[in-house]
Amino acid sequence: MDALLSLLSSFANQLQSPTLAFLIGGMLLAACGSKLAIPDAVYRFIIFMLLMKVGLNGGIEIRNADLAQLALPAVFAVVIGCVAVLLGLVTLGKLPNVKREDALATSGLFGAVSASTLAAAMVALDEAEITYEAWAPALYPFMDIPALILAIVLAKLAGKGKSGSKQNQLTAKQIIVDSLRSSALSALLLGMLIGFVVQPVELYEGFYELLFRGFLSILMLIMGMEAWSRLSELRQVAQWFAAYAALAPIVHGLIAFGLGYIAHITVGFSPGGVIILSIIAASNSDISGPPTLRAGIPSANPSAYIAASTSVGTPIAIAVCIPLFIALAEVVFPA
Amino acid sequence: MDALLSLLSSFANQLQSPTLAFLIGGMLLAACGSKLAIPDAVYRFIIFMLLMKVGLNGGIEIRNADLAQLALPAVFAVVIGCVAVLLGLVTLGKLPNVKREDALATSGLFGAVSASTLAAAMVALDEAEITYEAWAPALYPFMDIPALILAIVLAKLAGKGKSGSKQNQLTAKQIIVDSLRSSALSALLLGMLIGFVVQPVELYEGFYELLFRGFLSILMLIMGMEAWSRLSELRQVAQWFAAYAALAPIVHGLIAFGLGYIAHITVGFSPGGVIILSIIAASNSDISGPPTLRAGIPSANPSAYIAASTSVGTPIAIAVCIPLFIALAEVVFPA
Amino acid sequence: MDALLSLLSSFANQLQSPTLAFLIGGMLLAACGSKLAIPDAVYRFIIFMLLMKVGLNGGIEIRNADLAQLALPAVFAVVIGCVAVLLGLVTLGKLPNVKREDALATSGLFGAVSASTLAAAMVALDEAEITYEAWAPALYPFMDIPALILAIVLAKLAGKGKSGSKQNQLTAKQIIVDSLRSSALSALLLGMLIGFVVQPVELYEGFYELLFRGFLSILMLIMGMEAWSRLSELRQVAQWFAAYAALAPIVHGLIAFGLGYIAHITVGFSPGGVIILSIIAASNSDISGPPTLRAGIPSANPSAYIAASTSVGTPIAIAVCIPLFIALAEVVFPA
Repeated sequence: MDALLSLLSSFANQLQSPTLAFLIGGMLLAACGSKLAIPDAVYRFIIFMLLMKVGLNGGIEIRNADLAQLALPAVFAVVIGCVAVLLGLVTLGKLPNVKREDALATSGLFGAVSASTLAAAMVALDEAEITYEAWAPALYPFMDIPALILAIVLAKLAGKGKSGSKQNQLTAKQIIVDSLRSSALSALLLGMLIGFVVQPVELYEGFYELLFRGFLSILMLIMGMEAWSRLSELRQVAQWFAAYAALAPIVHGLIAFGLGYIAHITVGFSPGGVIILSIIAASNSDISGPPTLRAGIPSANPSAYIAASTSVGTPIAIAVCIPLFIALAEVVFPA
Repeated sequence: MDALLSLLSSFANQLQSPTLAFLIGGMLLAACGSKLAIPDAVYRFIIFMLLMKVGLNGGIEIRNADLAQLALPAVFAVVIGCVAVLLGLVTLGKLPNVKREDALATSGLFGAVSASTLAAAMVALDEAEITYEAWAPALYPFMDIPALILAIVLAKLAGKGKSGSKQNQLTAKQIIVDSLRSSALSALLLGMLIGFVVQPVELYEGFYELLFRGFLSILMLIMGMEAWSRLSELRQVAQWFAAYAALAPIVHGLIAFGLGYIAHITVGFSPGGVIILSIIAASNSDISGPPTLRAGIPSANPSAYIAASTSVGTPIAIAVCIPLFIALAEVVFPA
Repeated sequence: MDALLSLLSSFANQLQSPTLAFLIGGMLLAACGSKLAIPDAVYRFIIFMLLMKVGLNGGIEIRNADLAQLALPAVFAVVIGCVAVLLGLVTLGKLPNVKREDALATSGLFGAVSASTLAAAMVALDEAEITYEAWAPALYPFMDIPALILAIVLAKLAGKGKSGSKQNQLTAKQIIVDSLRSSALSALLLGMLIGFVVQPVELYEGFYELLFRGFLSILMLIMGMEAWSRLSELRQVAQWFAAYAALAPIVHGLIAFGLGYIAHITVGFSPGGVIILSIIAASNSDISGPPTLRAGIPSANPSAYIAASTSVGTPIAIAVCIPLFIALAEVVFPA
């Protein structure tokens, strides 16, 4: 009973965060028909800044990481990404009138990771003064890439060869290479590399970290507007996608929390790290995933998987899962 | 005599401000034919940042505002906006060869408000260490929206039904809704709402306030270049617009100063607040006004009202009215 | 022997700088086929911010400059710019199959100056805690403009009147005016003017200087990607350009170092100032030069001079010359 109350109060507390306020503010603007728009060039620059910040931080601190500690969570991240795709196939894919390709593309997106949700989680943890291993955000690609690859490979296996030669050209290797070449993963990995090799602490603290929260607030605003404007797209397709998009983040997060708990017991993975792993699992790819899936599963309807992700999945991941898993950790790992 | 000297010296002092230096610098660049251009995406982002900063600040502090105190200045702001439009109609509108629509569009713009001029005034007050009610900038929409609506409604009443159905579709309600939906007022109001509800002081100080003066300096540069390049447009139309544009900011500001003084005596409106109200009145809309007027009074010549505003009105408001009303306040309200 | 060892160790040390890491990182991204791209609007804004910062700083401090001290380095800057062009003509221009116009355009670019290389040098000096006269970066236009003018005038003298009236319209005066009107020099000179007249120290430190290193890191990233993508262009033209582009920065820098040493002895030019002059000489114009040369020597092949500059010359100037001349100064001017 006490645990439930503590979970609820911690959840209510998270709802007060500026990050969430900007997300809801963006939805409100779109709902009121505001003409406010953040220029696309600025949007892409903000994404770059956020990913470079996350990468640099991971790289700067990864030297101190105990590799034995990192290995198990990384393996778990791969497992979670693959399980998320398979789960989507046997739940969403079995619902009436849902096409197999649409189900696979959607579950691929929900197995993949959102850097913005991850960033929001990191800010929430800082605010709650919960520490975590600096390399924890580096678990991102270990979940992201396998999920996208598995979804595309399963879609190809199921394909009847209808769409011809173009589609067949995307091999698993190419999907990996394409993912790594995407602007999102490029910035993240380059940041990690530079952070690891030259450890530019002054530059990091005086610029990338300095501007991080502010740029994140603007990104949340943009994502809120985007989410609202795509709600109608989703309504046209199917209520099943909405139901899946609302539940999948929580289910994936809980699986990750369980595996993270195992890593906590066996290799001392920190409670903050368990939360990070859970949020990575709960998040769904909003930047790098859609173009990869559009190229990899061309027969899937983008309005289904993109609308499910941006208008339901991401708000649930940020507004529900972040406070939920912080609260859960406070109950499971008492100070 | 002493008062005049003190006014002159305070005026000369204001001319040294970086804000004004960038405005004049922009004019200088344009006059020399410089190819320097700030990309449009950056310009729109800077506007967003400035308005969000003003809104957040207003929202964060508005909780402490005494509503009885706010009410009278807000009523005065509405009155000033309407008086400005009517004054323009009976002065500029009566001059030889000046079309009624052009006079109404121009006085609508001069009754409306410029967020950049307001921002410049706030920086000038900070530099002069003059405090004001944090909700004072929130008087902006109380003057802006009534002025635009009145100008458009009067133009419609005067219209002979020439331009047909399209024009008649803009009702007063639609104009209010359109103004609130404009990117300028959206950002301002959202900032106020978020500031009021979640009070994100850390985010505000560490990002929006941190970057405010710098972005303002760039905006001033852009506006200086713009002002210079439109001087020739104005010359092609009429000297009357130039004369109106030079005098209206000062006259509107003086009316506001008088009403603000009444609010000072009756509800204790601060001297800094009186200056803010005067500058809001002296300013003329450079961002949100022109598109509203273009839609609302399509028969008016944009080169008349836009050139009058950007090339004469705004420089006068920033370079003359800000130092003038600060100096006047120092004489009227001795410390 | 000790001197050589000290030069080598100091050189190795410079290779650890974040600035260089981002340049190499950009090359790496391009080599791996990354899709990361910084939007053009952001790129142009970053250039503006960097130049305005350099200009403001120069202007703020130039009041304290001893004009007698400034005069000699300024004359030397003019001399170096002209010597660089003439040297290019008698070396690169004499090589087999190299067209005279291409040689002149290339040596014009290598005589001209890169603001980004200059900015990188300033950061490197700060990191090495080497002071220099604040007006030293203002030597930039004294070398840049004469080099571009001389290259274009020599190309015209050599021209057989083939390309007709259009080409003949660019007189020396117009080239000077065009250079001063370019966005690069406009921002630099306006910054100096504003810095000199109103000395906005608070604005400078709280915004332009605050963001300088961060924006520079992003610019280095962009330039690294650019350099890599143009390597192939260069291969198609000639190995001679590559050889010239690799050697010219070092040779020009050494000439400047020698003349700077004379200024050190005669008017007390600081060791840091000698390094700045050497790097200005070693740098080659990447922003303002190419459009000027494209207009001034239309018959020259841009892929020769632009590829030589961005893909070989600039990396050599930043990665080799900056550490080289810092190390050389440590040997020549022992503390």
